[in-house]
Amino acid sequence: MLDLQEIITDQVRLYIGDEVPDEYLSDQYVKDVPAVYAVALPKTHDEVVKLVQFAKEQELTIIARGANTGVAGAQVPLHGEELIIDLKLMNRILDLDEETFTLTVEPGVLVGDIHQYVESKGYFYPPDPASKHSSIGGNVATNAGGLRAVKYGVTRDYVREMDVVLPSGEELTLGSLNIKSSSGYDLLDLFIGSEGTLGITTQIKLRLLPLPEVTQTVLIVFDNVFQATEGTLSVLTSGATPSEIELFERDAVYYAEQHLGYPLQAQQGEAFLLIEIDGNDGAELAARMEMITDAVANDALEVIPLMKEEEARKAELIRDNILIGLMEYTEYEMLDEVVPINQFAELIEYTKNLQEKHGLNVLNFGHAGDGNVHTILMRDDLSEEEWETRRAALLDDLYRKVQDLGGLPSAEHGIGIVKKEYLDKMSADINLKYMRKIKEVFDPENRLNPGKLF
Amino acid sequence: MLDLQEIITDQVRLYIGDEVPDEYLSDQYVKDVPAVYAVALPKTHDEVVKLVQFAKEQELTIIARGANTGVAGAQVPLHGEELIIDLKLMNRILDLDEETFTLTVEPGVLVGDIHQYVESKGYFYPPDPASKHSSIGGNVATNAGGLRAVKYGVTRDYVREMDVVLPSGEELTLGSLNIKSSSGYDLLDLFIGSEGTLGITTQIKLRLLPLPEVTQTVLIVFDNVFQATEGTLSVLTSGATPSEIELFERDAVYYAEQHLGYPLQAQQGEAFLLIEIDGNDGAELAARMEMITDAVANDALEVIPLMKEEEARKAELIRDNILIGLMEYTEYEMLDEVVPINQFAELIEYTKNLQEKHGLNVLNFGHAGDGNVHTILMRDDLSEEEWETRRAALLDDLYRKVQDLGGLPSAEHGIGIVKKEYLDKMSADINLKYMRKIKEVFDPENRLNPGKLF
Repeated sequence: MLDLQEIITDQVRLYIGDEVPDEYLSDQYVKDVPAVYAVALPKTHDEVVKLVQFAKEQELTIIARGANTGVAGAQVPLHGEELIIDLKLMNRILDLDEETFTLTVEPGVLVGDIHQYVESKGYFYPPDPASKHSSIGGNVATNAGGLRAVKYGVTRDYVREMDVVLPSGEELTLGSLNIKSSSGYDLLDLFIGSEGTLGITTQIKLRLLPLPEVTQTVLIVFDNVFQATEGTLSVLTSGATPSEIELFERDAVYYAEQHLGYPLQAQQGEAFLLIEIDGNDGAELAARMEMITDAVANDALEVIPLMKEEEARKAELIRDNILIGLMEYTEYEMLDEVVPINQFAELIEYTKNLQEKHGLNVLNFGHAGDGNVHTILMRDDLSEEEWETRRAALLDDLYRKVQDLGGLPSAEHGIGIVKKEYLDKMSADINLKYMRKIKEVFDPENRLNPGKLF
Repeated sequence: MLDLQEIITDQVRLYIGDEVPDEYLSDQYVKDVPAVYAVALPKTHDEVVKLVQFAKEQELTIIARGANTGVAGAQVPLHGEELIIDLKLMNRILDLDEETFTLTVEPGVLVGDIHQYVESKGYFYPPDPASKHSSIGGNVATNAGGLRAVKYGVTRDYVREMDVVLPSGEELTLGSLNIKSSSGYDLLDLFIGSEGTLGITTQIKLRLLPLPEVTQTVLIVFDNVFQATEGTLSVLTSGATPSEIELFERDAVYYAEQHLGYPLQAQQGEAFLLIEIDGNDGAELAARMEMITDAVANDALEVIPLMKEEEARKAELIRDNILIGLMEYTEYEMLDEVVPINQFAELIEYTKNLQEKHGLNVLNFGHAGDGNVHTILMRDDLSEEEWETRRAALLDDLYRKVQDLGGLPSAEHGIGIVKKEYLDKMSADINLKYMRKIKEVFDPENRLNPGKLF
């Protein structure tokens, strides 16, 4: 049997026992993290296979980990005696195949680096989680969504093929470069979004699109959030096919404005849609802009086209910095619930009622075109006990409502351990039963990220 | 225990033993079909559940069947003692939800009827298998592709939610109306394309798009099929995002022309692309047409815009009637292999060499934008023995080549029994091993469509 030191010969890529740095033992959500057996940072597929075989022989559990930007606790150790496989050094872009529009990457590549690379070559990888520092492996593990899902879909829609290592040490290639398949069960989609509980991804082939020639951003101002959600439905039926429809409220914008030191380009209004359209030329964009303007004519106070790229960027930064700004004021918890798009307004209204009921400030922003809200619970100056009690009571109400509206606990961040209780409550028992059976098929010894998801 | 007559009280919806009509006992590919136990035609989900429970108690195997347009033998009985559940009477369109762009249908609805219905309401269901008489349940079971996959994807991309009955009699709702999900394993995609081996679908919620305002068809003429495939790659990178790129050769067109009694609108050339574009207005289409014209400028002999709808329709009918025309001349076998798009030309060239090598005439047409070829083997006046021998030898060569090119045996028709041998040869053992394990999870007694797929 191999020693860990024989698998990872480069000692700076291996931490054993007490050497394990604190960054692996703490998390936003899990405070008392037990010691782990070791942390290994493989650089190759073969090293991953050997690490998995080692863990199997030693009866260790395994956590695969990427850029550590996850917010559901999926990457933290729970039981002690874990082998953490940190994939951040497997961060090479391996190949751009311009004949099949495919980019081959290792799992540790950051999604922001993918965007930069492919755009410099005239291609487009549409999925854009607001966090550019998340790894593509993590994006696949959570089926990350983000800003452009309304037109372009989510991570699932852009993974053509993956190499995975099963907890048995077996190696499997899922999917193919073929655009169509009716050739057996779809194992690829089963692994996408499985939060590191079925296998460890070591290589991913992503589908690319041609980069749109032109884009245009428009800020639309509304009296209140309900008119903004009405406006969203109108835009969705207009034929303008926007690539982003982001919604935020004046209350939330405040924190970004304070942080960035400049105001949003709207003097009036309490709720906003930031819409991006893309296309082949200016005429196409102008036609789409007109559709959007017509669609919101009855609901909006003002339509502000941000013609200069610099102005568009300033508004996007406002949206991106809401959380960063908020961090300077208070501890908070961010949710990522999703409901069918026609229930979006009702969900937002409901969260406002919860604010009163539970005495906890609530902010909303989100991907209005997808029905995906980021509800933010703010701790403000509540004591630890008040915060925990009120937070738990509010979440119980909120997720019950999400379920009633036909929604799901997580749109794009994953379940991890943070939302496990709610996935359990909100799912039919029989669905969970078969998910567990599938877990047993690929991981009969429950070695891979145990205690996560369910 | 219930009798079949108590489950299906309406006797015209039940055939037992000798009463079973011949249409259930014959198929294009399977000649000696054994007798079956019974055929039942349920009208409700509850009847399906009871039929499945009955089969379980009686230890019968079950075959679910739709419009019987499948061409892979998936719907034929193999073992005797089957209960065939024919879903063709579950053919109601149940609901159009314009707030979530969702159409709820029973599995027996024909895809042509779905197109007609939603288009009359201003919506668009993009998947278009050339066979409008196929049922949506069958489309889901095979993950049908068809003409518009190049822009809009395949059936998989339009199923939001399904109700299925497992062979245990358990009932399961897979998926949801939410646009994003990171809430547990993706069971929905596992069932899509599973060819009736995991569960029986009783209700499907489909995602709709707004109907494009305008479409335009163009016929592009090439000297030979290799220039046509070059032209395809150029069009794909042009940004014109066509909704269809169909390729066919003069040889194939001949049969449709004879059948329809009019010629294709191209006097010269040996290979053709029939391209459809869609968009919001004439200006958008004109810009896209220009991109296409520029893209093929070096390869094409002629670009023929079919400005009138009637002219476009005539060319589409030529494409749709190749097989129907061919039927009047010879017995044939149609394949639906797929390769990565950059291998399309090499595959077509290879099939032409096989024609010489095996003394069997071969025609190609297909969805060039997807890498999906329909290779047609023509029996002509070969004896049964010559046909079987040459056909088998040619298929061995062809599928080996498809595998070498990174392709798959079936793009959109499914494996059934016809391509089982080739799926087995062309798949990694470990992928088949885990597919079988998943089959065991949902169908431990191998009751549902046994002997199909693998």
